[in-house]
Amino acid sequence: MKSEVFVNGLVCKNPNYVKTEDFFFSGLDKAGDTSKNLGSNVTLVNVNRLAGLNTLGISLARIDFAPYGGLNPPHIHPRATEVLTVMEGTLYVGFVTSAPDFKLFSKVLNKGDVFVFPQGLIHFQFNFGAVPAVAFAGLSSQNPGLVTVANAVFGSNPPISDDVLTKLKTAV
Amino acid sequence: MKSEVFVNGLVCKNPNYVKTEDFFFSGLDKAGDTSKNLGSNVTLVNVNRLAGLNTLGISLARIDFAPYGGLNPPHIHPRATEVLTVMEGTLYVGFVTSAPDFKLFSKVLNKGDVFVFPQGLIHFQFNFGAVPAVAFAGLSSQNPGLVTVANAVFGSNPPISDDVLTKLKTAV
Amino acid sequence: MKSEVFVNGLVCKNPNYVKTEDFFFSGLDKAGDTSKNLGSNVTLVNVNRLAGLNTLGISLARIDFAPYGGLNPPHIHPRATEVLTVMEGTLYVGFVTSAPDFKLFSKVLNKGDVFVFPQGLIHFQFNFGAVPAVAFAGLSSQNPGLVTVANAVFGSNPPISDDVLTKLKTAV
Amino acid sequence: MKSEVFVNGLVCKNPNYVKTEDFFFSGLDKAGDTSKNLGSNVTLVNVNRLAGLNTLGISLARIDFAPYGGLNPPHIHPRATEVLTVMEGTLYVGFVTSAPDFKLFSKVLNKGDVFVFPQGLIHFQFNFGAVPAVAFAGLSSQNPGLVTVANAVFGSNPPISDDVLTKLKTAV
Amino acid sequence: MKSEVFVNGLVCKNPNYVKTEDFFFSGLDKAGDTSKNLGSNVTLVNVNRLAGLNTLGISLARIDFAPYGGLNPPHIHPRATEVLTVMEGTLYVGFVTSAPDFKLFSKVLNKGDVFVFPQGLIHFQFNFGAVPAVAFAGLSSQNPGLVTVANAVFGSNPPISDDVLTKLKTAV
Amino acid sequence: MKSEVFVNGLVCKNPNYVKTEDFFFSGLDKAGDTSKNLGSNVTLVNVNRLAGLNTLGISLARIDFAPYGGLNPPHIHPRATEVLTVMEGTLYVGFVTSAPDFKLFSKVLNKGDVFVFPQGLIHFQFNFGAVPAVAFAGLSSQNPGLVTVANAVFGSNPPISDDVLTKLKTAV
Repeated sequence: MKSEVFVNGLVCKNPNYVKTEDFFFSGLDKAGDTSKNLGSNVTLVNVNRLAGLNTLGISLARIDFAPYGGLNPPHIHPRATEVLTVMEGTLYVGFVTSAPDFKLFSKVLNKGDVFVFPQGLIHFQFNFGAVPAVAFAGLSSQNPGLVTVANAVFGSNPPISDDVLTKLKTAV
Repeated sequence: MKSEVFVNGLVCKNPNYVKTEDFFFSGLDKAGDTSKNLGSNVTLVNVNRLAGLNTLGISLARIDFAPYGGLNPPHIHPRATEVLTVMEGTLYVGFVTSAPDFKLFSKVLNKGDVFVFPQGLIHFQFNFGAVPAVAFAGLSSQNPGLVTVANAVFGSNPPISDDVLTKLKTAV
Repeated sequence: MKSEVFVNGLVCKNPNYVKTEDFFFSGLDKAGDTSKNLGSNVTLVNVNRLAGLNTLGISLARIDFAPYGGLNPPHIHPRATEVLTVMEGTLYVGFVTSAPDFKLFSKVLNKGDVFVFPQGLIHFQFNFGAVPAVAFAGLSSQNPGLVTVANAVFGSNPPISDDVLTKLKTAV
Repeated sequence: MKSEVFVNGLVCKNPNYVKTEDFFFSGLDKAGDTSKNLGSNVTLVNVNRLAGLNTLGISLARIDFAPYGGLNPPHIHPRATEVLTVMEGTLYVGFVTSAPDFKLFSKVLNKGDVFVFPQGLIHFQFNFGAVPAVAFAGLSSQNPGLVTVANAVFGSNPPISDDVLTKLKTAV
Repeated sequence: MKSEVFVNGLVCKNPNYVKTEDFFFSGLDKAGDTSKNLGSNVTLVNVNRLAGLNTLGISLARIDFAPYGGLNPPHIHPRATEVLTVMEGTLYVGFVTSAPDFKLFSKVLNKGDVFVFPQGLIHFQFNFGAVPAVAFAGLSSQNPGLVTVANAVFGSNPPISDDVLTKLKTAV
Repeated sequence: MKSEVFVNGLVCKNPNYVKTEDFFFSGLDKAGDTSKNLGSNVTLVNVNRLAGLNTLGISLARIDFAPYGGLNPPHIHPRATEVLTVMEGTLYVGFVTSAPDFKLFSKVLNKGDVFVFPQGLIHFQFNFGAVPAVAFAGLSSQNPGLVTVANAVFGSNPPISDDVLTKLKTAV
């Protein structure tokens, strides 16, 4: 099943062998574990988990948030816009526009509310409520990518030079 | 708010006047009325209802199905792939590939299951269960379009010539 | 010549071995057999028959129609717009817009007339005249795909569940 | 009908006022005048003449050639691949690949033959026969553009500096 | 010159009034002021400063760096890949891949060296040398956008809620 | 390293083996040899020389010009717009629009000046000064392609038929 050839994205399956299961995924009804990672958990159904999405420009995610501060921290999807709807609980969400304005568009969302996070902009979701929150999101790529800002800057492998990080921390 | 100028899609709002509400929609927690239209109801959050989706290539939909036969009849989205997940109930879903094979890929979906309907292919969802079903779907366009096959062929305005329709019915 | 690797579309030929014949196809002067298939016959020159079209976003088709009712039945190209011109005879053609309007744009075309069928919309061509008709069409994809509506809905393999088809027929 | 607003391409018509004629063009059965311009004449049905092509990525052309040397001289379509088929007569056609190989792929085409001219490459068609030739072509843009090489280099307005042209002529 | 109509990007100028100056910009030979902003200065020639770039998918930038620590801090271009070459001095540059690996690809660049920063990934350039450094970069959009990570997260207008920022700082 | 599989563009490297050097190129500080080829020399950093550009839609070039007439002769990039800035010397540059206007937009550029050459249009650069000139250019493709007009028309392999070339020369 693993190809030795790499293209932009994934190679396709031989059409003669494609079957129903290639378009199917199960398990989005299961809550993710929110006891780690700042209290949030993303279950992303992208092309790596649902092969039938290949080349089709869309994916789905379920995001679970612990009560009292579950945070999906500031991050970027390099290849996708995200549109999210709240299934349970309450979320404080927002995104920040690009330079030079860095405007914050934020909102408290309740069940049934929908919000848009445009491609390549930093955004976050935060559960300040007393009950777990659950959201579903559509993303405009079969492989949106995820750049968690703090991890990329301060937790890369190997680390960015201390000279850079120190100067950056001083500036903030 | 209505522009006198038409482009491919919609014109954008003056960025200086964009506000948080332009990225916000509420009401996806409300069940749609399934007493008409073959027992299904689609609440589509596209660019016409959520302006902030403009140019971003994604939309969301909630689909409600009456029990005992609620049907979202065979249709096509001319500009979008759809990825759907079941929130409540059970759905028999499927799509048919293009000529000459016309293969049906179908599946019975339960809560938490996900299925892909590739762009431009005829697909349907059917609730044969005893309880209402609810699904959420992401679509890879801010304006996916909807071509309900039977309505387009047999219910256009004005109707397609009887000579054509009669010949077509004979062939089926 | 057959690749074991599948990408979105077809793999390319090694450029060093490309030759003039890869950009060449012959036979569009031959009338197709219109004695079957509702009295029409499509000779499609797509990337499967003319390898040099690969990645280039265009194909050509010749369509022949029997006199007294030759029909290219309602169908969709999931990946292409079609622009057609009549070479011989007379054709009644049309397409239907998407929901909720389902407007029919139709026209009787004579020799030298041109008509556009936008991507993903159901369209048809019908020869009600006493002589054979011939049309040529350009399509905006090297692999436009063809979804013949009646065949996909009522002739898929395996068939769509009777519960769905019966309900659908009742509604029409 | 003329817009005061310019976008990339043309603005769209108000959808409420769109009518069948917007998708219709007539006259491709008429031979073009081949008594000038090196003995060829292109009748291009692009978005400027057939508004319904707007945004749809395709156009059609009829090309007439005088006998005994009618030439559609070396030219480039900056935004389109062309696929051409011969309706009447015989044509010597070809295109040249890019640097550093500058390979010529050429062929004598007869009625019913098809040839591909990839986007942005210099190509030509030449009628060396004793009868007029007619070809139809599909192009992969609603506005392919035309850069006739000799006219652009030696007939621009104003002319390119003599220093450049003289040096260029010496090199050829 | 300012349009009252907004599209995705900018409206185009009436082609009849386009003139040479629309494709021209001057001043990239001037060093930017590096006494502020962490010791770097970006002179971006995008569509807002060079109208002729509209719709064409490319822009240029000159980046000046103060000696002994001039830093172009970690940032993202939401709509562009950047390819940079060093004209004077020495730069330590790098980018970090997306989750879950967060690999750092970094390099010390000297005069004439070139480096690629893929679209949507966090990257930086740092002058640890004793002389000013100058780089030129091409970007794959006429309007690449700039998200300076620290400014967006900690300097948005209005600020992101303290609850979020405090939790984020604790995690780093 | 050489793939036996060809796609549109190049196959990608196995991501597990990607390393910093894949995003790196050195040598753009070296002047090209301008003693041949009409007195100019293009050092193009495209995907063939800098693998990390694959799929990313951008490349860089350094162009050197001999004094007293170094010419980068009229040419086209079939897949890219070019934006150029002068580093040293003085250049007379221009491009010609498409039919039927063939307008020349030309300008004398000095150090720090920038000019745009839109995709698929014939353009040139000419050093009429007494000192060598150097320019850097960004191009909106990882593989822009180069069609040198005179070489393609008069120097193809094999040559275009004399009948065509003679007629063409007479017309100029």
